[in-house]
Amino acid sequence: MANKLWEKGFEVNKEIERFTVGRDREMDMYLAKYDVLGSMAHITMLESIGLLEKDELTKLLAELKNIYRTCEQGEFVIEDGVEDVHSQVELMLTRKLGDLGKKIHSGRSRNDQVLVDLKLFTRHELMEVVDEVKSLFDELIQKSNEYKDVLMPGYTHLQIAMPSSFGLWFGAYAESLADDMLFLQAAYKMTNRNPLGSAAGYGSSFPLNRTMTTELLGFDSMDYNVVYAQMGRGKMERNVAFALATVAGTLAKMAFDACLMNCQNFGFVHLPKECTTGSSIMPHKKNPDVFELIRAKSNKIQSLPQQIMLIMNNLPVGYFRDLQIIKEVFLPAFDELKDCLSMAAYIINKIEVNRHILDNPMYDPIFSVEEVNRLAANGMPFRDAYKKVGLEIEAGTFKADHHIHHTHEGSIGNLCNDRIQELMDNTLDGFHFERVEEAERRLLNEE
Amino acid sequence: MANKLWEKGFEVNKEIERFTVGRDREMDMYLAKYDVLGSMAHITMLESIGLLEKDELTKLLAELKNIYRTCEQGEFVIEDGVEDVHSQVELMLTRKLGDLGKKIHSGRSRNDQVLVDLKLFTRHELMEVVDEVKSLFDELIQKSNEYKDVLMPGYTHLQIAMPSSFGLWFGAYAESLADDMLFLQAAYKMTNRNPLGSAAGYGSSFPLNRTMTTELLGFDSMDYNVVYAQMGRGKMERNVAFALATVAGTLAKMAFDACLMNCQNFGFVHLPKECTTGSSIMPHKKNPDVFELIRAKSNKIQSLPQQIMLIMNNLPVGYFRDLQIIKEVFLPAFDELKDCLSMAAYIINKIEVNRHILDNPMYDPIFSVEEVNRLAANGMPFRDAYKKVGLEIEAGTFKADHHIHHTHEGSIGNLCNDRIQELMDNTLDGFHFERVEEAERRLLNEE
Amino acid sequence: MANKLWEKGFEVNKEIERFTVGRDREMDMYLAKYDVLGSMAHITMLESIGLLEKDELTKLLAELKNIYRTCEQGEFVIEDGVEDVHSQVELMLTRKLGDLGKKIHSGRSRNDQVLVDLKLFTRHELMEVVDEVKSLFDELIQKSNEYKDVLMPGYTHLQIAMPSSFGLWFGAYAESLADDMLFLQAAYKMTNRNPLGSAAGYGSSFPLNRTMTTELLGFDSMDYNVVYAQMGRGKMERNVAFALATVAGTLAKMAFDACLMNCQNFGFVHLPKECTTGSSIMPHKKNPDVFELIRAKSNKIQSLPQQIMLIMNNLPVGYFRDLQIIKEVFLPAFDELKDCLSMAAYIINKIEVNRHILDNPMYDPIFSVEEVNRLAANGMPFRDAYKKVGLEIEAGTFKADHHIHHTHEGSIGNLCNDRIQELMDNTLDGFHFERVEEAERRLLNEE
Amino acid sequence: MANKLWEKGFEVNKEIERFTVGRDREMDMYLAKYDVLGSMAHITMLESIGLLEKDELTKLLAELKNIYRTCEQGEFVIEDGVEDVHSQVELMLTRKLGDLGKKIHSGRSRNDQVLVDLKLFTRHELMEVVDEVKSLFDELIQKSNEYKDVLMPGYTHLQIAMPSSFGLWFGAYAESLADDMLFLQAAYKMTNRNPLGSAAGYGSSFPLNRTMTTELLGFDSMDYNVVYAQMGRGKMERNVAFALATVAGTLAKMAFDACLMNCQNFGFVHLPKECTTGSSIMPHKKNPDVFELIRAKSNKIQSLPQQIMLIMNNLPVGYFRDLQIIKEVFLPAFDELKDCLSMAAYIINKIEVNRHILDNPMYDPIFSVEEVNRLAANGMPFRDAYKKVGLEIEAGTFKADHHIHHTHEGSIGNLCNDRIQELMDNTLDGFHFERVEEAERRLLNEE
Repeated sequence: MANKLWEKGFEVNKEIERFTVGRDREMDMYLAKYDVLGSMAHITMLESIGLLEKDELTKLLAELKNIYRTCEQGEFVIEDGVEDVHSQVELMLTRKLGDLGKKIHSGRSRNDQVLVDLKLFTRHELMEVVDEVKSLFDELIQKSNEYKDVLMPGYTHLQIAMPSSFGLWFGAYAESLADDMLFLQAAYKMTNRNPLGSAAGYGSSFPLNRTMTTELLGFDSMDYNVVYAQMGRGKMERNVAFALATVAGTLAKMAFDACLMNCQNFGFVHLPKECTTGSSIMPHKKNPDVFELIRAKSNKIQSLPQQIMLIMNNLPVGYFRDLQIIKEVFLPAFDELKDCLSMAAYIINKIEVNRHILDNPMYDPIFSVEEVNRLAANGMPFRDAYKKVGLEIEAGTFKADHHIHHTHEGSIGNLCNDRIQELMDNTLDGFHFERVEEAERRLLNEE
Repeated sequence: MANKLWEKGFEVNKEIERFTVGRDREMDMYLAKYDVLGSMAHITMLESIGLLEKDELTKLLAELKNIYRTCEQGEFVIEDGVEDVHSQVELMLTRKLGDLGKKIHSGRSRNDQVLVDLKLFTRHELMEVVDEVKSLFDELIQKSNEYKDVLMPGYTHLQIAMPSSFGLWFGAYAESLADDMLFLQAAYKMTNRNPLGSAAGYGSSFPLNRTMTTELLGFDSMDYNVVYAQMGRGKMERNVAFALATVAGTLAKMAFDACLMNCQNFGFVHLPKECTTGSSIMPHKKNPDVFELIRAKSNKIQSLPQQIMLIMNNLPVGYFRDLQIIKEVFLPAFDELKDCLSMAAYIINKIEVNRHILDNPMYDPIFSVEEVNRLAANGMPFRDAYKKVGLEIEAGTFKADHHIHHTHEGSIGNLCNDRIQELMDNTLDGFHFERVEEAERRLLNEE
Repeated sequence: MANKLWEKGFEVNKEIERFTVGRDREMDMYLAKYDVLGSMAHITMLESIGLLEKDELTKLLAELKNIYRTCEQGEFVIEDGVEDVHSQVELMLTRKLGDLGKKIHSGRSRNDQVLVDLKLFTRHELMEVVDEVKSLFDELIQKSNEYKDVLMPGYTHLQIAMPSSFGLWFGAYAESLADDMLFLQAAYKMTNRNPLGSAAGYGSSFPLNRTMTTELLGFDSMDYNVVYAQMGRGKMERNVAFALATVAGTLAKMAFDACLMNCQNFGFVHLPKECTTGSSIMPHKKNPDVFELIRAKSNKIQSLPQQIMLIMNNLPVGYFRDLQIIKEVFLPAFDELKDCLSMAAYIINKIEVNRHILDNPMYDPIFSVEEVNRLAANGMPFRDAYKKVGLEIEAGTFKADHHIHHTHEGSIGNLCNDRIQELMDNTLDGFHFERVEEAERRLLNEE
Repeated sequence: MANKLWEKGFEVNKEIERFTVGRDREMDMYLAKYDVLGSMAHITMLESIGLLEKDELTKLLAELKNIYRTCEQGEFVIEDGVEDVHSQVELMLTRKLGDLGKKIHSGRSRNDQVLVDLKLFTRHELMEVVDEVKSLFDELIQKSNEYKDVLMPGYTHLQIAMPSSFGLWFGAYAESLADDMLFLQAAYKMTNRNPLGSAAGYGSSFPLNRTMTTELLGFDSMDYNVVYAQMGRGKMERNVAFALATVAGTLAKMAFDACLMNCQNFGFVHLPKECTTGSSIMPHKKNPDVFELIRAKSNKIQSLPQQIMLIMNNLPVGYFRDLQIIKEVFLPAFDELKDCLSMAAYIINKIEVNRHILDNPMYDPIFSVEEVNRLAANGMPFRDAYKKVGLEIEAGTFKADHHIHHTHEGSIGNLCNDRIQELMDNTLDGFHFERVEEAERRLLNEE
């Protein structure tokens, strides 16, 4: 109870306490490590402006590093009766260092403390998402190159349309991820700004050195305006969710395609037995549950921006407790997306491609455009060529020539995967994760 | 492993198993009790059509009742390595009764088994939501009557507008709940139909008696068409979520009002100290976190229909594993809403109303419409009266007469709370929960 | 300019006028007819409480009936410079009747005037939606009966699973509409309550007789509490949108199925040439654009509730101009849904069904469950039967017996379409449209 | 009718035609200009690969430039009976140039034609949105600087909390726009890639030179993979909608604040009379409709990504007619957002700020944190200082010292508006609109 920071002497109704704490303690476990990092930077700065003695800083940093290590080893817990991660860390410090432990709170509010925790957590998770996207991208490019000569029918309106290839199909999703990366980067840049020092959203009368904490924590810049720093809560989550949603959208679509191509009526791809599940009443079933779950989980992630919007929308400026609920939907989303990404890379690697799809004459009409173009190239007006071939198909006399010769950029014969790789690499070059990693390493090593 | 119903002899990749099982075991805990009930009805019917011996039925029913009691006592667990609730129940039965335990699965698929579980669970939860809505409604009507003579300014555009009262404010939210109840009832009626017997969505060659299980489980009717019974999965969740969302919308709006009226710039209501929380840096703060959390949690629930839609939308007919993910967002929503409802009833009961708001002359202009109407009633054309009073307000010479005489239906002087009560009662009469309770009681008592 | 009701003598910035009027004049065209009806009821009541002379009422009613007829003939226009429908009607009255025309505004605000317009409009549109749903339902039941013996493969996970039929497929969507009707009814009941008399949301000091206008306009009851009457704005639209969304969900899913079944890889249905469109470069294409557009338009409608939520959410009590924007997305949705419904009925009527799907041996495994059940019925334990048939399928030795004998309620051999019809009819009986029609007829005929 | 490109000789049902064409002709008016530009680049490339004679190109380019000018003058129309913009342009060309006019279609499909139209349109609109965002940003920075010394109470939980200022308030929204700009840029980069040459999504057998059209149209790069080029339809709209939504979120929040601060209970800002609207029954009302409409229209835009998602989600690869419906919600959104942005800049410029808010002693407690910090700075432990001041406030003995001395980065005394300006400018530097403008100019001038 002494752990309730704002305790003022009257008993708080138990039910209300349960209701208001909610799932905070569970959610704060995601943030513990970052809370410690934020405190390390904060007190280092406090010492620099004379609000902490040199030896106080040394003791506090040493103890915080211990707690950080506890977090890394998965042994950090928020004890019963302790409200949140901030209170738990303070409790652990005061147990070891007495009243000195309380000094880490000077010049901060829980508001900017949780803000910086969320920023550091989200930055870290975005780095991991970027890595997973990159792995799936590599897998897709590799498959695209491997199957560049395996043709399949391309569909429009789910009607067989024109020749396509597995090279195109795999490559399309790789390029989709390259575009998604632009939004991950915008989200990352917005995230990688320092809110520490904004206190409760109106700054502090202490002469804080925010430039110093910005550098210590490896942020690109500050959220300068302290009112905006607080306003960024909810907004950052929503915008990062946009970025996750675009990746999820790519995954969901790819999974849908795979389910369809795995249907016996298509038979374009085949999943190895160990990647399918069966039915309790139908002995012949081999279901592509993995793709279905990638799709469903990705679609759940696609709903995240709207969910956050509904919680934060039409709230006036300034902190509200409402923002706490966003944690419940936002924090677990990263693990869900990373799980889908790595499972997608795994199963794309395992997927088996049918190399003989076009042997089936039902697909012959996909070559009709080639024929029309051939006639047109030889001088027949396009409209006439179109009509001639159309009539042949109606009459069943159309003869398909399976030789196709597509040479332009991005077509079957010229996938441009190296150019797509370049697009991806150019965006990746703009992240500069190394700066963050170096700052965190420095913060954890120096005393 | 023997517990995987569709096991066919090859090793399933561990990672894929973790990914596909996901949070199923956690989610199935919500369904355990209802899974047992469904099985009891199913085997009673199996015996009636000769697929089970009389004494087999007796033994199975007795054991299922034991498991049901385990669930009621909160002691049911899904053991490590057991995939889902259905497998766990079968395992417990076969431990006690040997191969006989497996017979509960005849003539069913896991698809209609989980369908009936979801229906029974949702029906039960809707009953509880209805009860909680009723309690909050009663509290609001009681407060409306209690404060029917306490005036406050009514606002439009957040501009002070006309005289209102706490009688009107509390009563408005009561009536809102009466309308919401219409949607809870539509959702309940859609839910209270029996999908059992639809198997994997295409029925069974066994001569099942679905009319019998419909009666045993207290359903109003069947989901007749077996393809539709399966198609109802996802759709039921979405539509029930609509109904929860309308209740949540009422709660969120009421909570927003309360937060605003509790702001020092209004000071219309006051929350007792034990219902507020403080700030770690601002000693004067008494924050209405409870209302903020009711609002945020309700807004989260309002996003539920869209979330379910994104998961289920544009899937063709027939079961997909995607539907499993809906459980993660749907099943916990009932507890969240019931929690918000009971907390709202609690805090509405505690809220203290300022009886002297209109003593402040800043609110005098709200009486201007009365004055315009009075002049108009005495023969001055409305437009002229409007202009005269408007000029007086501009000039600061307007004298407010605080006597108001609103008599028509639903106005300050004639709240019609008894008529609103009637609307609520009429809808409640249409649920017939007693039929369900009786059926469940009968199913659990007879052997 | 004299037409701006709240004009007080200073020039309103032109740009601001354009911005604030927005698409109001366009939107108000949907409401004109209902605005006239509302005024007729209102002034009839005004006369009854002595606020209008008998002969004044007579003249005003006669003129309003003329305007109503103008609306019915599609000749009503909102003139340039006139802000909205209310101003236009008043202008037309004062042109004919002088200052008497202005008296229709006594005891009302534009707020309850637009509220009653929206209620009457929505009520009318819901009646039409119900009719269109009923027509599509009838078409589906008819097709279900017609094709009850035409088998097709049923799918789960898009994997061929068990025998299904076109009887089941058409019937499933009919039953889906029967469930949707429950929500249309909840929406209708919420809509069919009288907000007139709530003025700006705080009632009136005039002794209005709201019971009388409730009866004159054929409403089931009032929105009693005047604060709630105003609070219903936005909420009614959102909840009606829920009901439209569930119908739209049924349409979208049906359309998706149709597109899939029309794909050459399935070839289950065939659209007559006049119902397809072609491609500008592929002469063999016959695309099911109609189904695709039904799907897309329905999906757009499915997003409506969330769209309205985002506009109205987290607004405190009392009217805000925000609510005007809801009209832009809400009013046109009815025509869009009715269009989809009638087009769906048309094309379902035209659709041609392939009676020979199962001649293709690729579908043989769908009969495996029958075989497992047959073996089980003859005494082999279910698990053993399941294993035996599974091994036969793996080995390619499984022989399918196309005779199926499904007899239970809702299965292939026993569609229960009459029971589904009963569900639909029971719900339809609860609407009582005749009461509304009679009230409107009475209001328009008597003087 | 001859204008239906895919016409093959049978009569298309009239109703189906109306339904499928839908609002296409209206929507295509947004695209006309860009359709012409796309055709100019395409045929220039066709000539370079020998599919068009030099003089044919000259004639076609001259005529297309005429049509472009018609568009610019607002005189382009899609004639009755003409299906879409592509058909209209072809019709206009063939009227002038005979069969030569049809040659612009070679090596293209309507699919990549509309894709390039959408890209060029969206690119142009994003450029304009960026400009409007910049204008509002400038206005906010200017106001922030102007009012940097005007204090107001800062709120958390809508409870008065700590000293804030109008400098902070205006500056916060400026910085919010600087972050939003990151997403506009990601959206712009994704948009500014060339889909031309992807034909129906599977490329062409013509030896198209896509690098050439990429340069002619000023695109940064191609959508290389032709399958992805088509897959970008819907995805681009959704992601651009994300970017618009974040700007709209900033606007909506700012508008909400302004409405609240304009409420008489706050009285922090005042709108000049010409920017308010009145009430038809309340003569004292001056309503901030402009801000309410900015909020509502912005909230409508915030729902756009979800709306597009629901239409495009769970569609397999390849074009579907569904994508047409996205145009209806996407194309008009730019005008709506630009209108809100320019109206916001206008009204922010006009807004009048109350310089004497803190004269009211009700706000004294906002200085309590200063006092706590002062005591703490003088050596009293923070917790004790907090308790002391808290007790003084409870007892009514707290004396506020209105002198505040906030000096750190981003606080009241040190707004860092120049640094925020730098953030904005750095992002703006990454757009390179000049490249696009130069390419378009070149395309329109050379022959």
